[in-house]
Amino acid sequence: MNKLNAAIFGATGYTGEELVRRLAKHPLVEIVALTSRQAAGKPASDVFPWLDRRSNLGKLQFEAPDVASLKGRIDVAFLALPHGVAAEQASPLLEAGIRVLDLSADFRIKDPQVYQQFYGHQHPVPGLLPGAVYGLPERHRQEIRKANLVACPGCYPTGVLVPVLPLILAGQIRPSSIVAVSMSGVSGAGRTVESRLMFVECNESVRPYGLPAHRHLAEIEQEISLAAGETVQIQFAPHLVPLNRGIATTIHVDASSPITEQQIGATLTSAYGEEPFVRLLPPPSFPDVKNVAYTNAIEVSWRVDPRTGKVILMSAEDNLVKGAAGQAIQCLNVMQGWDEELGLN
Amino acid sequence: MNKLNAAIFGATGYTGEELVRRLAKHPLVEIVALTSRQAAGKPASDVFPWLDRRSNLGKLQFEAPDVASLKGRIDVAFLALPHGVAAEQASPLLEAGIRVLDLSADFRIKDPQVYQQFYGHQHPVPGLLPGAVYGLPERHRQEIRKANLVACPGCYPTGVLVPVLPLILAGQIRPSSIVAVSMSGVSGAGRTVESRLMFVECNESVRPYGLPAHRHLAEIEQEISLAAGETVQIQFAPHLVPLNRGIATTIHVDASSPITEQQIGATLTSAYGEEPFVRLLPPPSFPDVKNVAYTNAIEVSWRVDPRTGKVILMSAEDNLVKGAAGQAIQCLNVMQGWDEELGLN
Amino acid sequence: MNKLNAAIFGATGYTGEELVRRLAKHPLVEIVALTSRQAAGKPASDVFPWLDRRSNLGKLQFEAPDVASLKGRIDVAFLALPHGVAAEQASPLLEAGIRVLDLSADFRIKDPQVYQQFYGHQHPVPGLLPGAVYGLPERHRQEIRKANLVACPGCYPTGVLVPVLPLILAGQIRPSSIVAVSMSGVSGAGRTVESRLMFVECNESVRPYGLPAHRHLAEIEQEISLAAGETVQIQFAPHLVPLNRGIATTIHVDASSPITEQQIGATLTSAYGEEPFVRLLPPPSFPDVKNVAYTNAIEVSWRVDPRTGKVILMSAEDNLVKGAAGQAIQCLNVMQGWDEELGLN
Amino acid sequence: MNKLNAAIFGATGYTGEELVRRLAKHPLVEIVALTSRQAAGKPASDVFPWLDRRSNLGKLQFEAPDVASLKGRIDVAFLALPHGVAAEQASPLLEAGIRVLDLSADFRIKDPQVYQQFYGHQHPVPGLLPGAVYGLPERHRQEIRKANLVACPGCYPTGVLVPVLPLILAGQIRPSSIVAVSMSGVSGAGRTVESRLMFVECNESVRPYGLPAHRHLAEIEQEISLAAGETVQIQFAPHLVPLNRGIATTIHVDASSPITEQQIGATLTSAYGEEPFVRLLPPPSFPDVKNVAYTNAIEVSWRVDPRTGKVILMSAEDNLVKGAAGQAIQCLNVMQGWDEELGLN
Repeated sequence: MNKLNAAIFGATGYTGEELVRRLAKHPLVEIVALTSRQAAGKPASDVFPWLDRRSNLGKLQFEAPDVASLKGRIDVAFLALPHGVAAEQASPLLEAGIRVLDLSADFRIKDPQVYQQFYGHQHPVPGLLPGAVYGLPERHRQEIRKANLVACPGCYPTGVLVPVLPLILAGQIRPSSIVAVSMSGVSGAGRTVESRLMFVECNESVRPYGLPAHRHLAEIEQEISLAAGETVQIQFAPHLVPLNRGIATTIHVDASSPITEQQIGATLTSAYGEEPFVRLLPPPSFPDVKNVAYTNAIEVSWRVDPRTGKVILMSAEDNLVKGAAGQAIQCLNVMQGWDEELGLN
Repeated sequence: MNKLNAAIFGATGYTGEELVRRLAKHPLVEIVALTSRQAAGKPASDVFPWLDRRSNLGKLQFEAPDVASLKGRIDVAFLALPHGVAAEQASPLLEAGIRVLDLSADFRIKDPQVYQQFYGHQHPVPGLLPGAVYGLPERHRQEIRKANLVACPGCYPTGVLVPVLPLILAGQIRPSSIVAVSMSGVSGAGRTVESRLMFVECNESVRPYGLPAHRHLAEIEQEISLAAGETVQIQFAPHLVPLNRGIATTIHVDASSPITEQQIGATLTSAYGEEPFVRLLPPPSFPDVKNVAYTNAIEVSWRVDPRTGKVILMSAEDNLVKGAAGQAIQCLNVMQGWDEELGLN
Repeated sequence: MNKLNAAIFGATGYTGEELVRRLAKHPLVEIVALTSRQAAGKPASDVFPWLDRRSNLGKLQFEAPDVASLKGRIDVAFLALPHGVAAEQASPLLEAGIRVLDLSADFRIKDPQVYQQFYGHQHPVPGLLPGAVYGLPERHRQEIRKANLVACPGCYPTGVLVPVLPLILAGQIRPSSIVAVSMSGVSGAGRTVESRLMFVECNESVRPYGLPAHRHLAEIEQEISLAAGETVQIQFAPHLVPLNRGIATTIHVDASSPITEQQIGATLTSAYGEEPFVRLLPPPSFPDVKNVAYTNAIEVSWRVDPRTGKVILMSAEDNLVKGAAGQAIQCLNVMQGWDEELGLN
Repeated sequence: MNKLNAAIFGATGYTGEELVRRLAKHPLVEIVALTSRQAAGKPASDVFPWLDRRSNLGKLQFEAPDVASLKGRIDVAFLALPHGVAAEQASPLLEAGIRVLDLSADFRIKDPQVYQQFYGHQHPVPGLLPGAVYGLPERHRQEIRKANLVACPGCYPTGVLVPVLPLILAGQIRPSSIVAVSMSGVSGAGRTVESRLMFVECNESVRPYGLPAHRHLAEIEQEISLAAGETVQIQFAPHLVPLNRGIATTIHVDASSPITEQQIGATLTSAYGEEPFVRLLPPPSFPDVKNVAYTNAIEVSWRVDPRTGKVILMSAEDNLVKGAAGQAIQCLNVMQGWDEELGLN
């Protein structure tokens, strides 16, 4: 079978690097271009010391991003670029007939005004928003199948949405009562060289940040509102914890009416029983990021507080895999009609 | 001035060790006895490699716990013992006229039935409960001053109670809406040698545990109910994160009526403006466990979510200092009428 | 092609778990049995939370080790057992015509007296020693090809031997002057639940241990002596550092006669230029365990101190992969005449 | 007693911060000035979140470094500045009659040509070199007592020199055979914001660096040569390991003639038996950085390899305390004739 030719834009960041690592092992994808303004001209093995310099991929030279020069060479483009920049590349790529999987926030928010409010600048190409599909396969698989532009979810939104959406759709929880608290490893902050991300500043440290309105809240609320059939606002509090990879999320939410752990388990099993990447952990198990690190799995568990009736939902995922690169590859597999696990196990 | 003679029971655990470390530098306290069944007969420097073996304290031999043999030698006893065991030692100590600072849970819960419900066994000496004072100086300083038996708070309760109590007392928040999520370093689990606490099991891991009803909930709800003037139940979700020391706590709670960050700041400043160990961090600052590690300080910050009106309270403390040994020493300083910072800075 | 049926003995340890993880993805191997006395009767997904409980492997029940019951069901056995125990299983397995890859130390030392000196007990089956092959493919590929019993090297020996052997064989360094210092992640100590391996005891800690004669010295010296053609004793100092996986090794050694970095590079390239798992890093690069973690690669770099002429060799490997499970699978691939990278990339 | 007025130059780095933390508790020193070009005008509590903003020190404003404006206000200056910069400040300070404790490398190397070779620029004030004293109290206490300019040792040199010097002075080891391998926590690299020092780049990483000629080699060899009475060159290999604080050093060296562990212990005890900050750990103990972290202690242990007769020396220290700020304060205590432990326990 002919392989699909792929380009990775912004391949020097952590998300881009993870895409390289994963796609290099995908049996039906060939990485034919890596772009980066700073690394242009360097062989990939100079940028990624773990890459064998004797391999074809190790020898592949980074190039400056230039859609014109890529036209005809690639079938699909992964955009691991900052928001704002991604949208600018997406437009010519789509015009050139190249499918786009965008890992930035640029096409996640349907309403350009909400985008502007959370990201601080006008949306560069609002005309593309209606055609973009939110790339959470467990929720939007049918639309992803037909999409040319997939907006891959953020890492935090994945950890919040996977556990809550089936229960909202089943009417079993009151979405406006959601209090989601997340703890993220440091790679979630990206490869930016900043004082606050130095080893000594993060090691032996735990701290909240981005409160009260982290950018990811926009897409979380959009998807929750869509499922709820009404506009919903929730609480979301991210924290930085000293590990490389992984996000743990714990959500407190009111039940719509008294509910048991068995009922929650039934709803989640009905939604995810056949999902290859959702691992349901019935009580008394707990999710743990170390059990999902370096994989595309997301673990989900739940409790009902017998004293208060409150529902507690918990998830764990690898922010760079199910929260970014892995989910994008899963979306590509869906788009191509391939086995969803290709390149991901 | 004559020094106060102190014994530390159960000195080989992390809390006991921290008491040794701190009291060794307290200008008005002399450690004259260290007890431990397993370490009896060993010099302290064998148990604590950081202790100079040439010093008097380094040469002090551990002894088996025996109140009869301690009578007359000590003025005060710190109990860093498991719950159940602590209560049994407290009784003869108090009868011998020795003041007791208990760091276990045994005297924190006023209602012996609640104790039994959360700790799984009958309270061994319920008759002592009425005389015990909950050792949170920022809240119960006057009673601690006159107490002979102080029940030092748990590490999680300190992190939850310090931020919420003034706002509850001021009627500004609805206590039953509290959702407290905490992230604790691994020393909080004590020195028990268990598989789940091994380095490889905790490093690169984040996980919830003890849900939905961690034992510390009993004392948290007791103190909140006392402040609220009514019985209150809350949500509390602890997590284990990969660092040695420190607890970060983030609390979401409804305002009683619309409130501003300035009003919250005013209430907290009124309560804690003169407190030596409470560090108020007005927005846009955030608490961070690395800034309180190895100190008796607790950092507190707050936000009001402008979209929902929800109040967000955050704290950071060292679980072994303000959450245990340091707070016990602070209580001793209060009991003795000393400068509260002695031995703690 | 028919898959090879494999059993993993002692599969609950870190090495056994890594074998499960890797062999589960090997295209030509089927895991048909997992043994463990403690876990017997449990499905694999209970022991390994990262395993999908819906998969065949997730459902595979652990069994007590019993060669008689395995006969006819398996073609090959991986022994991830303690030394002493491994030798006892190897004997009936080989008699039953089952090929054995032993990851313990039992068949690494050719001389049963040296074994007894370093491991403290008589060798249980010295008659098997002559037929055992030391499983370092980069050195003994031809013998491994024909072996029925492969003694996979220890994690430290791999890190020392890979850089030094070609230079010894080329007569360019004086082996008796070797001073090897290694730094190992904590998984190297195995899954034993011991106080010294608790998170709080290892985190923010660095310490030497096992000096002056760590057990791995025996096999290191045996292989060095074999290459040197004379009996050689060296210095080896292991250290524990706070990370999960990986060993960095730095070796100081005298050149036989004045040598340049180019000459060392030439010797190493001649030895390893075609090796799939040896990544040579010419100056000014340095090895880093983070670039080999979770892979079967070993990085090697070198320097000549221009002031003293001393040769400095450095390596980095994942102790559980190239230092254990990965190397065993590489050996199996060699034994079967398969592509050496199967199941390893 | 009147307190000594102190200024800390370059107080925003990790070493400067540690000086602030320690001197704030020194009973005979008052911090009256903190300098930093970038932080000038800010109160200290803005720069150091752990400082109580209500305290005098918390309110002290950073100022730009300006000796003229400090003249008359301070008695002593600590220079926590980059090399090159420190030398420029030292000159006017000394002229103004202010004693100087320099924590940079500028006055450690007696020979300005060696300085230039290792630091890459001409020494700015070579005329001050003869009057500078190398601030290792365990070796140069008498000269420090009379010094106006103390060059505090680097962190690595302290870890190498403390174990080896007494044995060299006793003629028991051959200094030219020294192979010293050190493992440092990340704070040793300073507060520079660089990609290689980011959390994700250091966590789960171990790597050598700076080989073959780290700058600290110059002062190590100078002091070893001085003790040996001849010019000596050694091997020194630093490594970065993932923890905040601490350096472990392991040294292999030939005995001058066959020696026992008892003889080494006797020499070290004779040298350090009364030293308040040297903790000798006879076999079978090992040093561990976690037992010296946040203290001015240095642990030293030793072995003789019974197979080869090689001597193995090991040390552990906190790079920011005994390796920097603590040692500087110890030197000040010596200069002032005070108890050497003031401010350090």
